[in-house]
Amino acid sequence: MSYFTEAGSVEAVNARMGETTDARLAEVMACLVKHLHAFAKEIALTQEEWEIGIDFLTRTGRICSGERQEFILLSDVLGFSMLVDAINNRRPEGATENTVFGPFHVEGAPIREMGACISLDGKGESCLFEGRVLDLDGNPVEGATVDVWSDNADGYYDVQQPGIQPKWNNRGRFVTGPDGRYSFVGIKPVSYPIPDDGPVGQMLGQLGRHPYRPAHMHYMVTAPGYQRVVTHTFVAEDDYIADDTVFGVKETLIAPFQRVDGDTLWRSPFDFVLVPA
Amino acid sequence: MSYFTEAGSVEAVNARMGETTDARLAEVMACLVKHLHAFAKEIALTQEEWEIGIDFLTRTGRICSGERQEFILLSDVLGFSMLVDAINNRRPEGATENTVFGPFHVEGAPIREMGACISLDGKGESCLFEGRVLDLDGNPVEGATVDVWSDNADGYYDVQQPGIQPKWNNRGRFVTGPDGRYSFVGIKPVSYPIPDDGPVGQMLGQLGRHPYRPAHMHYMVTAPGYQRVVTHTFVAEDDYIADDTVFGVKETLIAPFQRVDGDTLWRSPFDFVLVPA
Ligand SMILES: [Fe+2]
Ligand SMILES: [Fe+2]
Repeated sequence: MSYFTEAGSVEAVNARMGETTDARLAEVMACLVKHLHAFAKEIALTQEEWEIGIDFLTRTGRICSGERQEFILLSDVLGFSMLVDAINNRRPEGATENTVFGPFHVEGAPIREMGACISLDGKGESCLFEGRVLDLDGNPVEGATVDVWSDNADGYYDVQQPGIQPKWNNRGRFVTGPDGRYSFVGIKPVSYPIPDDGPVGQMLGQLGRHPYRPAHMHYMVTAPGYQRVVTHTFVAEDDYIADDTVFGVKETLIAPFQRVDGDTLWRSPFDFVLVPA
Repeated sequence: MSYFTEAGSVEAVNARMGETTDARLAEVMACLVKHLHAFAKEIALTQEEWEIGIDFLTRTGRICSGERQEFILLSDVLGFSMLVDAINNRRPEGATENTVFGPFHVEGAPIREMGACISLDGKGESCLFEGRVLDLDGNPVEGATVDVWSDNADGYYDVQQPGIQPKWNNRGRFVTGPDGRYSFVGIKPVSYPIPDDGPVGQMLGQLGRHPYRPAHMHYMVTAPGYQRVVTHTFVAEDDYIADDTVFGVKETLIAPFQRVDGDTLWRSPFDFVLVPA
């Protein structure tokens, strides 16, 4: 029988785990306790700092609603979401890398004809997006679904402005044929801040950080027999490209954005390379 | 310029800290990020587990109210509250040890005459609590305030049952004279569960843990020129003495509870030893 001590704090807590506890849950919780206690010990967390932490979590919980998920924002700005994404989506060289899913995907976007325009509000600089869905050997993948979503020229997703933006603005799904090609017209996306009027935004302010994400297109590419890819393509020239507040940028996801057609249209080519399931 | 990588995740996040960020805040946050990422990496946290965690935090936030602080409960059952208490209240051998403050203290309890009874609802087994407030050399401390609070015989604090228990039931403050002595009559406390009808209770269930605290008296002892002591005394024979769900028990805080007066009264002697401020 041993009581709690500062030195033996981790063992005291983890010794309580019941014998019938799910093995993986027990392992995850024991690891969490170990690292949480290591944090408090290493930094010699004060009682006042603990209270600030409790208050922060409480305010973070209070602002959550059906439309607002402040804990995901918190995970995002601490690089935790990207880390979990990275751990779970290790891919061989040459395959398209994953990045964070983000909160703005909507299931069931319209399946559109190849080459169709997804920008429905007439705002922004038109851009032709095109490329191929390939396997690791460079062969086209037929029947792949390219699900794309982006913000509008004002920096908002349609779901952030219901009644203002047309439904399914800057969203669509495109299914490849035998050549693996996809193409559609959208707009060159713009950088936007994550919602920063809550506790996470206040924290970013205190840490001297801005809330912006560099301009990006969201993609989810699926095909029978292949791993799902959830990713973005990024605009290299964006002011925040090296400074994404949620750490989503990867070198291989920076896509060319070139002016074509006498400057009236942009063009952004990008190939997606899938890994077998 | 370096983008986020799995291996360099901590550095990627902590490199963002602004130069004008409060030095201590920067240090605490950098340490938190380091240990949170180490946790995810060591356990190879899955995307699904991350979602379960986000959902848990969200539900924990949702149940918080003016009367319910689920994040403190969470901190308590993970031993985190006790750890922070231990880190911030290291005391020399012989001094009374701290333990968790708990959520049920109320400022401004009545100052009662020495020997008075604090149990106002007529329930429970009467117990005489008495002892001295001393300095490290064993000299009495005059003018020390012994602020005591306990549950009633049903396991509830008065503030948990407004309108049912009399106001200030099982609470009082006693100020020592030149002999440093205190004494009062209360009840032998009983074990009780922490509120377990929320996410933290569900978690305890999944971990195979019960929600009980062994029977204890709460004390806050203050005196001019001395460090404040926030502590409990515990009943040794309690079923949960080795198994406090919030890890509050320390060997030196287990107090004798002896029957006196032909078994009609208990007696629990305990001296508090204070450290200079
Ligand atoms: Fe986005
Ligand atoms: Fe208590």
